[in-house]
Amino acid sequence: MSIVVVGSVAFDDVTSPSGSVKNILGGAATYFALAASYFTQVRVVAVVGDDFGPEQERVFREHRIDTRGIERAQGKTFRWGGTYSDNLNEAKTNFTDLNVFQTFQPRIPTEYEDTEFLFLANIQPTLQADVRRKMNGVRLTGCDTMNYWIKGTPTELAATLKLVDVLLINDTETKMLAHESNLPRAAQKVLAMGPKALVIKHGEYGATIFFREGAFGIGHHPFRAPALPIEEVKDPTGAGDSFAGGFMGYLAAQQEINREVLKRALFYGGVMGSFAVERFGTERLQGLTRDEIEARFQVFRELTHLE
Amino acid sequence: MSIVVVGSVAFDDVTSPSGSVKNILGGAATYFALAASYFTQVRVVAVVGDDFGPEQERVFREHRIDTRGIERAQGKTFRWGGTYSDNLNEAKTNFTDLNVFQTFQPRIPTEYEDTEFLFLANIQPTLQADVRRKMNGVRLTGCDTMNYWIKGTPTELAATLKLVDVLLINDTETKMLAHESNLPRAAQKVLAMGPKALVIKHGEYGATIFFREGAFGIGHHPFRAPALPIEEVKDPTGAGDSFAGGFMGYLAAQQEINREVLKRALFYGGVMGSFAVERFGTERLQGLTRDEIEARFQVFRELTHLE
Repeated sequence: MSIVVVGSVAFDDVTSPSGSVKNILGGAATYFALAASYFTQVRVVAVVGDDFGPEQERVFREHRIDTRGIERAQGKTFRWGGTYSDNLNEAKTNFTDLNVFQTFQPRIPTEYEDTEFLFLANIQPTLQADVRRKMNGVRLTGCDTMNYWIKGTPTELAATLKLVDVLLINDTETKMLAHESNLPRAAQKVLAMGPKALVIKHGEYGATIFFREGAFGIGHHPFRAPALPIEEVKDPTGAGDSFAGGFMGYLAAQQEINREVLKRALFYGGVMGSFAVERFGTERLQGLTRDEIEARFQVFRELTHLE
Repeated sequence: MSIVVVGSVAFDDVTSPSGSVKNILGGAATYFALAASYFTQVRVVAVVGDDFGPEQERVFREHRIDTRGIERAQGKTFRWGGTYSDNLNEAKTNFTDLNVFQTFQPRIPTEYEDTEFLFLANIQPTLQADVRRKMNGVRLTGCDTMNYWIKGTPTELAATLKLVDVLLINDTETKMLAHESNLPRAAQKVLAMGPKALVIKHGEYGATIFFREGAFGIGHHPFRAPALPIEEVKDPTGAGDSFAGGFMGYLAAQQEINREVLKRALFYGGVMGSFAVERFGTERLQGLTRDEIEARFQVFRELTHLE
């Protein structure tokens, strides 16, 4: 099976306590696609400028990622610069140059139309909804968003949330979206807005999945996957997108989507997020093997496993 | 087997989004003793004033907690007042009246001297060290501390840490003690200061135990116990002490202390902490049954258990 991801491809400048890099390949769709490519065939819908060349193209091709949906526009690719200081959980944004991304209108190639899984990375909610409507044969849709849209376009976001199956956001975004400071109560409110499942990413503490009553099976308990304590966090950029890539990529490779499968997907999300932060940019995600992924899956499992 | 806890017994005034209470029984030793009493026989060393009466005494007696080490001094018992607003992880202290606790000199009753387990709750580090030296037949010593001692009495604390087996502190305290912002690296530095194991409490995200190389068995991986997402957090006061009570109480009931036992203890710590916050003060800890504890242990286990 395969998955379509719609989102940003970018060039990033990143400074962290471990060093500094410039003009490296980044963007939510890039991190997602690379992480998901270890599990399933990935198709990207994005826009890049004329500074996106064979070197960047090669990264996708080497992971058999379909780039026919990456539109080439005149101008520069989206560029972002950020600095992480001691608190690696939060970047200080130095600049955001939207460039060709500013007028991004996602176009789904005909060849993508039969794709069974869809991930709407963090873009304007109405664009997300448009893509979802165009791909109405899809089996399961995952979605990300951020504070900017939660505050700025709540009505548009509410419409999008009615069209998605799994929403993947962090603690702060969940509380803001629900107007509720208690996390489990906030989760229930978000589920009432549309998604069948809500994945809350806790950064270094892992992630929790909450299910809507009756969705994906029976039961009312949430499930939590821990994250591995990482000694060398070089660059947290893209950790959340890599998490989503591992989670959705694993799902897209399964015959049936039930709660047990979603739990395993949560672990794979944590695994891919933990790899992403070990090197700057997408370097670590580019050079993984399936054996390394399975080995870390076992470490994560043992991290909370009682005899 | 049995355990001695040395620490504060107090009266608390607590305000949280769920309400307000005054003059309720609190203090680290109280929360610890009640939580541990479901697993083992508990003996308390503390000081109270003449406002500590039969009503408070009864709470301990009903849990077969030995209070012969609770000294009655002239004056008032330690009093603390705090307010929790939307962020339930942090209390705003309204007042701290140390009263008789100011000149607390822990005295170990002769009847306590053969006790095999010891917990040094959060008191001045030199007092902790004195108690530990007096009880030199002890099999395992647990210890808590706080920012106030980490900053104010680092030399005294360093001496205490050489005498304890398991240190239980939170993320912020660990980073402060190690002068290191990366948690796993901070954990290694703290272990180099003396303890054989370090339990880092993450509040609503559970806790992680790090082992010193070769201590309690082989292996180099940490272990994490998740916490249950709680919909009704009424009063977070004493959650950490209740965690310590569940953790140490479970250990004190075991024949052998190895890594597998310490992992289970970490789960029981989380279980007791999660009960503590469901009602104001020690109310929930007073009325538990062992069946309720085992049921929640199973829920915690399933929270991260893959088929």
